[in-house]
Amino acid sequence: MKISIKNKEITKTIYVNKNDNLLKVLRENNIEVNNNCGAKGKCGKCKVKVLKYNYLKTTKSDEKYLSKEELKEKIRLACMINLEDDMEIEIINNKDNIYVLTDVYDNFDNLDTNIKKHYIELKKPTLKDQRDDIKRLKESLNIDLEINIKDLQNISEILEENDYKITLATYKNKLLHIQGNDRRKYKYGVAIDLGTTTIALYLIDLNNGDIISVLSKVNNQRAYGGDVISRINYTIENKNGINELNKCIIDEINEMIDKISEDNKINKEEIYNLVVVGNTTMIHLFMKLNCKNIALAPFIPTLTETYECLSSDLDININGIVSFPPGISAYVGSDISAGILSSNICEKEKYSLLLDIGTNGEMALGNKETVFTCSTAAGPAFEGANIKYGVGGIDGAISSIDLNKNTIYKTINNKTPCGICGSGVLDISSQLLQYEIIDESGRICDLDEIKNENLSKRLKEENNMKEFVIFEDESKKISFTQKDIREVQLAKAAINAGIKVLLKKSNLTYDDIEHVYIGGGFGNFMDVESAVNIGMIPKGFKNKIKSIGNCAGKGAINYLINEKKREEIINITNKCKYIELSQSKDFQEFYIDSITFE
Amino acid sequence: MKISIKNKEITKTIYVNKNDNLLKVLRENNIEVNNNCGAKGKCGKCKVKVLKYNYLKTTKSDEKYLSKEELKEKIRLACMINLEDDMEIEIINNKDNIYVLTDVYDNFDNLDTNIKKHYIELKKPTLKDQRDDIKRLKESLNIDLEINIKDLQNISEILEENDYKITLATYKNKLLHIQGNDRRKYKYGVAIDLGTTTIALYLIDLNNGDIISVLSKVNNQRAYGGDVISRINYTIENKNGINELNKCIIDEINEMIDKISEDNKINKEEIYNLVVVGNTTMIHLFMKLNCKNIALAPFIPTLTETYECLSSDLDININGIVSFPPGISAYVGSDISAGILSSNICEKEKYSLLLDIGTNGEMALGNKETVFTCSTAAGPAFEGANIKYGVGGIDGAISSIDLNKNTIYKTINNKTPCGICGSGVLDISSQLLQYEIIDESGRICDLDEIKNENLSKRLKEENNMKEFVIFEDESKKISFTQKDIREVQLAKAAINAGIKVLLKKSNLTYDDIEHVYIGGGFGNFMDVESAVNIGMIPKGFKNKIKSIGNCAGKGAINYLINEKKREEIINITNKCKYIELSQSKDFQEFYIDSITFE
Repeated sequence: MKISIKNKEITKTIYVNKNDNLLKVLRENNIEVNNNCGAKGKCGKCKVKVLKYNYLKTTKSDEKYLSKEELKEKIRLACMINLEDDMEIEIINNKDNIYVLTDVYDNFDNLDTNIKKHYIELKKPTLKDQRDDIKRLKESLNIDLEINIKDLQNISEILEENDYKITLATYKNKLLHIQGNDRRKYKYGVAIDLGTTTIALYLIDLNNGDIISVLSKVNNQRAYGGDVISRINYTIENKNGINELNKCIIDEINEMIDKISEDNKINKEEIYNLVVVGNTTMIHLFMKLNCKNIALAPFIPTLTETYECLSSDLDININGIVSFPPGISAYVGSDISAGILSSNICEKEKYSLLLDIGTNGEMALGNKETVFTCSTAAGPAFEGANIKYGVGGIDGAISSIDLNKNTIYKTINNKTPCGICGSGVLDISSQLLQYEIIDESGRICDLDEIKNENLSKRLKEENNMKEFVIFEDESKKISFTQKDIREVQLAKAAINAGIKVLLKKSNLTYDDIEHVYIGGGFGNFMDVESAVNIGMIPKGFKNKIKSIGNCAGKGAINYLINEKKREEIINITNKCKYIELSQSKDFQEFYIDSITFE
Repeated sequence: MKISIKNKEITKTIYVNKNDNLLKVLRENNIEVNNNCGAKGKCGKCKVKVLKYNYLKTTKSDEKYLSKEELKEKIRLACMINLEDDMEIEIINNKDNIYVLTDVYDNFDNLDTNIKKHYIELKKPTLKDQRDDIKRLKESLNIDLEINIKDLQNISEILEENDYKITLATYKNKLLHIQGNDRRKYKYGVAIDLGTTTIALYLIDLNNGDIISVLSKVNNQRAYGGDVISRINYTIENKNGINELNKCIIDEINEMIDKISEDNKINKEEIYNLVVVGNTTMIHLFMKLNCKNIALAPFIPTLTETYECLSSDLDININGIVSFPPGISAYVGSDISAGILSSNICEKEKYSLLLDIGTNGEMALGNKETVFTCSTAAGPAFEGANIKYGVGGIDGAISSIDLNKNTIYKTINNKTPCGICGSGVLDISSQLLQYEIIDESGRICDLDEIKNENLSKRLKEENNMKEFVIFEDESKKISFTQKDIREVQLAKAAINAGIKVLLKKSNLTYDDIEHVYIGGGFGNFMDVESAVNIGMIPKGFKNKIKSIGNCAGKGAINYLINEKKREEIINITNKCKYIELSQSKDFQEFYIDSITFE
């Protein structure tokens, strides 16, 4: 059996077996299709257009997530199709250029790396000096080098071919690379912020700490589910799942390294260190560690402490070491410890709060003495998931709302609206509240309760669900539904309650906090007023809030280029006390208190 | 094109290309055929019987090395045949059961190993104790374990499946193995003496130092040449040569490990350390190191110092570390340093001499202060090579000669004579001298010069070459030729001269030497009287000579089971001064003086 797949200009044919799942087949053939739920028909993202198929059905999931127009155009969810015959399809939603926050707002002038390059001109052997190659090398370098078997197998040829003039790259006493001639000038590192949704990769010159180039991409693992729990479930439910997810991310990172190396005309053999930070699940998937127990109580990862291995151990195509800065717990990963590091929270007497709001709202409250951290299961509402017309931060995403304007929305790059992204979700919630279209309980008011006539026109109902229409033309409608508002309420309550737990544990009030740092993509684009207005961030913090860009990426770069930062982050994580909110009575109470918009 | 190969009871068909070399094809298909010269038609060992072939020729090499009877029976040298058409052959000489010296004459009661097994019962995680798996493990063990990525990937499953009761195997702070339940009793090591011709493998119980079992085999690399120079040449002349030779030995060692594990019902996953000693070339081939420069002046190996790597780095199927004790130079390998270690030469005030006589005569003269070593290119005469009817120490090999007896020879296992092995070569030389059949210059006397009539009958001439017939029946003749005597003269002169150089360098006389230890297979079986009589070993040593069995294997076992011995052998090799005889005027003079039998 075969499927013919039209993807932009190209048509590709792949061969499949009867009963193969269409989404799985697309995934295995590296055809990008969105999916947030792990192929369970629960997110409505994996739309494909069926051009020819004798067995086309409409499942309950299709009905739930697709509009009538879409159904009429034979658009279906790929995950709901188990193939019964040849098929022709067209890929329709693979154009996500999610904007990835890569700004790190800093110069890195604190270079202090253990990656060294040494140029040496060895004395050539004679009958009077019969020292073997390794002894000759070590005595000239005066380091008790640890040499791996591959380098040992090549060294004698390299010495001879280069007239005994060579450059060695070392990490501490480990030999990483032997080359002919003087190559001291060429010494690179890569720092990666590995997010569930996006990846930011920084190419760094290890001779001066400069950022040579930045590359960002959507994490291809999204095809296996939008959040970490779906991906963990995939590894539990599929025998080869962990290997698939691992290969997916390793292949993607290798492609990114290839691209950034080619674009910047550097030799990737001269990249000697890769530093990866991310949430604990992403790091486990990157390392191919069993992550089942991250999803199940009592939530135990294999590893949170710092780890180093050879790039070859993980099939990463550089020539050296892969370093993992330490994380804190199953749900507070090394992206957060890197954020604590780069935001310098732990260098001050006064307390600061760091917030990273995504699917989970991870947060840390601390000073030089102590840090409390926790993670709230906020849900992916602020990443555009679980929201009826939610999308990521892509071209055409509605990213801000002002109900007082003629055109009430703005989209990313001013493209025709295609959905609402996180900051839009925040804004619309705040505005609906402000214009009293929803009441303090979060209920969308009845028509007769609404004073503003322009806005009341936008109130509709579909399938017994009230909704506020943001955009509508002949072919498309984008609205914000009662259910969407409920999602926002749960999310903002979780974050608000988390903050209050940390304050209580630390025995502090709002006034004791000097800065509230917002890290991560959503934090960067969100409107602070809106966040405070809906009660996600307590009003007491309003004037202390500061966006600090990709503080995880910044921490990773610091870790990469500065040996002392490696010690510092270990000290930080040793200092961190993790609070398990699922066991916290305080959290429960604060949470319930925070659900309304009072 | 195809070849049909009859090998004992089995007929195998292999497919080949026109012009393929027959010996190479046999080798690549793992069909054992002897060969000492690296397929150059210069040793006459790779005989096969041609059953059917339309292009059968007789080359100069065939004429030189094969008897008329053999030629008539369509026996030819495989290395001289480049295939032009289908062929049927029979393998005729693959039955070598070379006797391998494995005796180590010792109990190993000095156990002190860094291979440890730890049994631990971990506290199970709870919501109040969310330590990750690795932290849990390390805190319970109180070792800052270095864990490789593979173990990290498996650990969480092993913990869960075994109810958090596990056994860890460690080497220093390196984790080697995680298992469920209490497996402390099962902890093994392997020591290998890797010779050019033979391999001796010892399976050791690391809980008490006992030798559980010994296994010996012929080194399969013999198919690539009998001596180290032929094998190095093979790596120079064939692009993939080093990989072929490496795979050959690694496969063989893995097969031996499989066999000894199965025979002794042990789990090879519980073999945690493999120690290999051997001459520098064999160690290079085992590690897949470039060894070209060992063969070319100024004779530079890649590595002589001690080295350790993971068994997986070398594709060795155990579960731990492969350790290489240090060698001394290109031609004095770790077998010799292991021999120095196990013979305790360096523990005494008085000087002793260690001799290991094979293709090279390696020797060491020393005491607790200093050791001089050298290697003489004795040639393979005492291993039966370069001798017209020479064979290894196999069944039927003539191993001793007494011209005063009725049957002048004894064979190994009393089988029908098939050739002469090293100890027979030594004896016949000594006896011919004693019975004045050769004169002091080494010339075979003319018939009229010989007094003993019984013996003079044995003097023949073939192709203008005088020879002394040892055995003859209707189908076969075994003789010792004038050329053979010249080979012996060169060999014994080299050894004698080497000994004298060491004495002169150390400023010692025969009387200063307490013991002369003879190590290795040939040394064990040779008749000391004969060795002294032909002047291989100076007469002044006659009563000091002691065979010490496989002192290299014994040293390897000591290294395996005792951490202090690892330091000791490093001290020994640091103490060793290697004398390059090719540059020694003394050696030249002693050598020329020693060629005659005066």
